[in-house]
Amino acid sequence: MTSYSVHPLPGIPQVHPGDDLGGLLTEALASAQLGPQDQDILVVCQKVVSKAEGRVVKLSTVTPSPFARQLAAMTTDKDPRAIEVILSETTRIVRMDRGHLIVETGLGWVCANAGVDESNSLDDDTLILLPKDPDASASRLAETVRQRTQREVAVIITDTFGRPWREGLVDFALGVAGMEPLLDLRGERDWSGRELHHTVNAQADALAAAAGLVMRKGEGIPAALIRGYPYQHGEGGGIKLLRAREFDLFR
Amino acid sequence: MTSYSVHPLPGIPQVHPGDDLGGLLTEALASAQLGPQDQDILVVCQKVVSKAEGRVVKLSTVTPSPFARQLAAMTTDKDPRAIEVILSETTRIVRMDRGHLIVETGLGWVCANAGVDESNSLDDDTLILLPKDPDASASRLAETVRQRTQREVAVIITDTFGRPWREGLVDFALGVAGMEPLLDLRGERDWSGRELHHTVNAQADALAAAAGLVMRKGEGIPAALIRGYPYQHGEGGGIKLLRAREFDLFR
Repeated sequence: MTSYSVHPLPGIPQVHPGDDLGGLLTEALASAQLGPQDQDILVVCQKVVSKAEGRVVKLSTVTPSPFARQLAAMTTDKDPRAIEVILSETTRIVRMDRGHLIVETGLGWVCANAGVDESNSLDDDTLILLPKDPDASASRLAETVRQRTQREVAVIITDTFGRPWREGLVDFALGVAGMEPLLDLRGERDWSGRELHHTVNAQADALAAAAGLVMRKGEGIPAALIRGYPYQHGEGGGIKLLRAREFDLFR
Repeated sequence: MTSYSVHPLPGIPQVHPGDDLGGLLTEALASAQLGPQDQDILVVCQKVVSKAEGRVVKLSTVTPSPFARQLAAMTTDKDPRAIEVILSETTRIVRMDRGHLIVETGLGWVCANAGVDESNSLDDDTLILLPKDPDASASRLAETVRQRTQREVAVIITDTFGRPWREGLVDFALGVAGMEPLLDLRGERDWSGRELHHTVNAQADALAAAAGLVMRKGEGIPAALIRGYPYQHGEGGGIKLLRAREFDLFR
């Protein structure tokens, strides 16, 4: 193994629907003298991707259903219109207790509030949804970087989630392009020669967590560059990180 | 934010009960020309800590209880003696299904098989348990490094866990010394001036995941050094990463 480094990527302005995010990222990389180089990994926070793609909802346009009103009254201190938006992104409620709403989204992520977010939004009336297809978003960003710089980078789109059993938030990979999100070491042997039966590493999640350490909301840094991590090129697919319901003990 | 780097730490020999692990790590850092420097974070895999501390059990000395035999027959293809060892580390079975045994340990970790591990063990007859008190282990390692090098490093002891809902394994922080495992950003404001109500980052878990990317079992690299991450010194306590049962929706 070799060393790798993680660089915050400053210089990205407030992003609005329709903005060319790939272009903004490429310019920010150049301004920060971060290349890119082939084999870099560009990590981008979901919020700016969703904003650029127009995945935002104006609260003032939402009429809450009776169920949304009921949940708002029962389980949280949220605006019933925000609950309505969360439900519109939800295929299954996994837990609804103590003010928390943990749900499964259409693509199969399990997270609080279907990833619908009020922080870092454009204004008080705006909610930000998760990107519709983060793998496609990641592929588009990688393609834009390739066209503008002739460099092949992998792209990981991340969001910040809580975890069962543990305190605090960590960044996870939603969309992945240009590398395999899972690193399958089965068949390799450990140090003492024993075969590693269960070792499939969620490397894209670990890279997302590593990048999250330099992507601070308060400092307006929605992206990071990871350099020197020796991944193999692959088709990507953050969706591969989702455990199928039939193999999951916690749904 | 500034950049940080993650370095694999090679050169650590097979560790045996009673070995001076802090000394071995210090020598490996020197051999790898990795200092240490003040403000570095030394990340160490739980297995070598447990081995050095003698937290190993010989299967041949274990007599399985009827319950352990019953579980072995019902739920897994495991040796009933290994199940007996897992149960001896267990205070509560969280899930027992489809060949998996997810339990809560005495200190409150929730993980598969109580963290009891057969891979990278000393021989086929040996199981490795989690360290008895990983925060104390981390503190001792930090103290040894301080005495030998006059440098103040933080230490994180990690283990590799699966996660609900998601495929693949990621490294998590068990024991933490010299830095706060949680980074509390509540009260700070996001980019658009909105207060961050829910933002407590599990920075020690993210650092563990980052280090895990260079700690490959197959290559015998049980430690890593993280340099340049601007943590504040603190008393540590990986135990702070554990959510109390009464606030947990998934136990």
